[in-house]
Amino acid sequence: MKPPVQFWFDFSSPYSYIASEWIEALAARHGRTVQWQAILLGVTFQAAELRSPVSYPIKREYSLRDFARSARFEGVPFRQPEPFPIPTQNAARVFWWLADTRGMDAAAAWARAGLRAFFTRSVALDDAAALKRLAAESGLDADEAERVWNNPAWKDRLKRANEAAVATGVFGAPFFVVDGEPFWGNDRKAQIERWLAQGPF
Amino acid sequence: MKPPVQFWFDFSSPYSYIASEWIEALAARHGRTVQWQAILLGVTFQAAELRSPVSYPIKREYSLRDFARSARFEGVPFRQPEPFPIPTQNAARVFWWLADTRGMDAAAAWARAGLRAFFTRSVALDDAAALKRLAAESGLDADEAERVWNNPAWKDRLKRANEAAVATGVFGAPFFVVDGEPFWGNDRKAQIERWLAQGPF
Repeated sequence: MKPPVQFWFDFSSPYSYIASEWIEALAARHGRTVQWQAILLGVTFQAAELRSPVSYPIKREYSLRDFARSARFEGVPFRQPEPFPIPTQNAARVFWWLADTRGMDAAAAWARAGLRAFFTRSVALDDAAALKRLAAESGLDADEAERVWNNPAWKDRLKRANEAAVATGVFGAPFFVVDGEPFWGNDRKAQIERWLAQGPF
Repeated sequence: MKPPVQFWFDFSSPYSYIASEWIEALAARHGRTVQWQAILLGVTFQAAELRSPVSYPIKREYSLRDFARSARFEGVPFRQPEPFPIPTQNAARVFWWLADTRGMDAAAAWARAGLRAFFTRSVALDDAAALKRLAAESGLDADEAERVWNNPAWKDRLKRANEAAVATGVFGAPFFVVDGEPFWGNDRKAQIERWLAQGPF
C-alpha cells in the first residue's frame, strides 16, 4: 500500500479550496488516499515570518484576480467571499473532532462542505450561528459541533496539528507531502501528478 | 496582428530563467511574438513591499528545492548558482541597449545567454570581467558592453523600465501580460497557454 498524500489546508484559503476539489480524484487515479489536515494559515505564516498575499496592496489586487481565474481554470465554482480572510479555528476544530472520532472520510466531507460554503456562498464560518447551520446541513448535531469548538481538548488538538505542520515545514496552504517530497500551492498540481505517475523526477 | 506577449524578467530570477526557455515557443505556437523586458526584481519588491522568497529561512529551503524541481519538470538544465541572488543591473542595461539599438531579437538572445550562463554555469553576471567575457562569447564588443553599463543614459533606460513595470502592476518575475491580462510566475504557463489558445476564460 502506497503512503497517502498529505494535504494541509485552511478553510479560508482560496487555493486550498481549489485544490480540495481535485486532490481526491488525482490521488485515487494513482492508488493513493488523502490525509486531510486542517490548519490555521496564520500560525504557519507567523512561524515562517510570512504574511498573506492579500495583505500586500499591489499583490492583493493580482491575487483576487488569480483566485477566480485559477478556479475557472480548474472548472471549480468560485465566488470571492466577503469579508475575507476570516478566522477558521471553529471549523478546523470540528474537522479534527471528526477525524479522530469518525475517521478521515467524515472529516474530509466536512472540509469540502466548509470550503464550498465559504467560497461559493460566502457562508461566514467564523459566525457561530452560520457554522451551526452548516453543521446541521452536513448531517452533524449542531449543538454537539458547538460544544466541540468550545472544548479545550479540541482546541488543543488543532494547536497540535498546527505545531506538527510547522515542524514538517508547512509555511502556506495548500501544502502537500508525497513520499516525503513537499509541494506548495494549487499550482503544483501538474508536478504532483507527474510524481504520482512516475515517482521522483 | 495579435499583440505580443509581454514578459518581464530579472537575470537573477530562477523562475524567470525557466520561463525564458518556454515563452518564445509557446507564443510562436499561437502566432504571437514576445516583448522581453529586463527589470530589477529588487525595485518591484520594494514598490510592492515584498521580499525575495529566499529571504525567509523556512520558505528558502523549499524554494531552492522547487527551483531545481520546476526546471526538471520543464526539461530545462539548471544548477543552483552560488552566490545567489546577485545584482543584475549591468546585464539589464546591456539588454536595453540592445533592445533600443539592435532590436528585440538581439536583446532576447542576450537575455537567454545571460540567464543560461548564470543558471547552468554560475557565471557571475555581477562581475565586470565575467560579464565582459559573456558579452564577447555572445558576439558583442566586450569593451562597448562595459561602456554601456557605465553610461548614465543606459542606467536611466533601465530605471525607466523598472518604473514602467511598477506602473503596470509588476510585483515579481517572471511576469506576463497577454491582451491586458496579468500572469505572475513560471507556474502560470498552463493558464497562459489556455488564454493564447482560446482567449479569456
